Amino acid sequence: MNVDSNWFSEFYEPGGSAFGLKIRAKLHEEQSAYQRIEIYDTETFGHLMVIDGCVMLTQRDNFLYHEMMAHPALFSHAAPRRVVVIGGGDCGTLREVLRHEGVQHAIQVEIDERVTRLSEQYFPELCEANHDPRAELRFEDGIAWFANAPAASADVVIVDSTDPVGPAEGLFSEPFYRDVNRVLAPGGLIVQQSESPLYHVDLLCSVHGALRRAGFSDVKTLHYPQPVYPSGWWSATLACKDGSIRPMRIESARRAAFPTRYYSADMHQAAFVLPPYLVEALAQVTG
Amino acid sequence: MNVDSNWFSEFYEPGGSAFGLKIRAKLHEEQSAYQRIEIYDTETFGHLMVIDGCVMLTQRDNFLYHEMMAHPALFSHAAPRRVVVIGGGDCGTLREVLRHEGVQHAIQVEIDERVTRLSEQYFPELCEANHDPRAELRFEDGIAWFANAPAASADVVIVDSTDPVGPAEGLFSEPFYRDVNRVLAPGGLIVQQSESPLYHVDLLCSVHGALRRAGFSDVKTLHYPQPVYPSGWWSATLACKDGSIRPMRIESARRAAFPTRYYSADMHQAAFVLPPYLVEALAQVTG
Repeated sequence: MNVDSNWFSEFYEPGGSAFGLKIRAKLHEEQSAYQRIEIYDTETFGHLMVIDGCVMLTQRDNFLYHEMMAHPALFSHAAPRRVVVIGGGDCGTLREVLRHEGVQHAIQVEIDERVTRLSEQYFPELCEANHDPRAELRFEDGIAWFANAPAASADVVIVDSTDPVGPAEGLFSEPFYRDVNRVLAPGGLIVQQSESPLYHVDLLCSVHGALRRAGFSDVKTLHYPQPVYPSGWWSATLACKDGSIRPMRIESARRAAFPTRYYSADMHQAAFVLPPYLVEALAQVTG
Repeated sequence: MNVDSNWFSEFYEPGGSAFGLKIRAKLHEEQSAYQRIEIYDTETFGHLMVIDGCVMLTQRDNFLYHEMMAHPALFSHAAPRRVVVIGGGDCGTLREVLRHEGVQHAIQVEIDERVTRLSEQYFPELCEANHDPRAELRFEDGIAWFANAPAASADVVIVDSTDPVGPAEGLFSEPFYRDVNRVLAPGGLIVQQSESPLYHVDLLCSVHGALRRAGFSDVKTLHYPQPVYPSGWWSATLACKDGSIRPMRIESARRAAFPTRYYSADMHQAAFVLPPYLVEALAQVTG
């Protein structure tokens, strides 16, 4: 399978699979201070952002990821007011967070400002909450930011990172989770994008173990489709600072005054049900 | 994106996407009386069967499809004894059906005997129930078979077909569903593979409408990941001859004396929960 001018292709060698989207044009390409960013116009998925050769998002299917990174965590927390998004430079997760009226302050800490500027240009619908007075966009290293953030200053932390290689590798590690744990207030929650339930069972186990060793008291994974990521099936892992991950605020979710396409109160509960092979693998994890 | 000798690629033009698997070798290729069949050895997905250029199954991920085509329907029926599989020549669905001890007779009606013979050779684990005394393998046209089958002679009918183009097109149509309805005994259920919830919303609506017009009294769709099919996300649609689709036999499912990797009683219930955009689309369907 080779790239020709009509297709963008991502070869996921560890999985032995490849995914392609038919493109109309390459709209932009640059080497930022951190990574190579490309923007394409596709035939059927709208605009596509690629970083270092990996599909980041498309206009057609990003709702799956952004809704499932934001709403399960926010509706599992009793009263989320202060939210931090690490990564998430396309601003789609931030937009979903700010749909929650109770959120008073949402900080997005993205290392690469160019991702956000290009998203403002090519994915403007994801950036429509960037000027919300509750939003604070910071462009700096998320790991350093957490090391310096005050204790007990956040209710929900969303780790909306790229894959655990290169700059994002530290975001999947026990030292980072320890800092997040310190920054979370009592009752606080972390949610981490945790890759493919088919391809990355070892990584999922490793994330569960690292979160527990970092002091989190309950760890749960949810899953959802994500056609443009390797295997088309993706996950997010939640953990809480103390106690157990609470039952969702189901009445709040049912009455949510904002539209969602994939998330609902019922989908929230269904997404946490895992197939037996994953239940078995995660049961082997020791803290 | 072009095929070279190291990759098998399927270009799904209506979706504007492509999927590829890294291959070690082409093991077999033939033009049967009905279709072109290829078998590959892949790097990471085991053996791969391709029909007319479309991925049919791989050894690595077929459990998702086969378990979700068989067990939700069989555990939703009060006491499934007589099961008919239309298509399903790889025999993986038949194997799952025969895991149910209460099944007394399972007929597989596959039009192309070559699919089954090649499956016996390259996917022997899927064919391990072919010599079960309860199994009957027939190689003939499923639509004609149903037109001639006695009324009220089956409890569950599983339409394990290829995409609704070419020979399988008639399997997605009201006249075929009318025949199935006639052949089902009271309390009977049909389950139809119903393509991608992302790409094929119109088809899903059309299947719902056709089943209702054919006399089925309740129609419900479930969804599950299927990495090697377009969009990586797939569905099956169930319908019952009379009444409502019963709550599953949850205690039987929990106590099932056979192993599953994706299906469980809890996954069964979760799989029927649909995202809001699909709920809305299907609510528009008139019978």
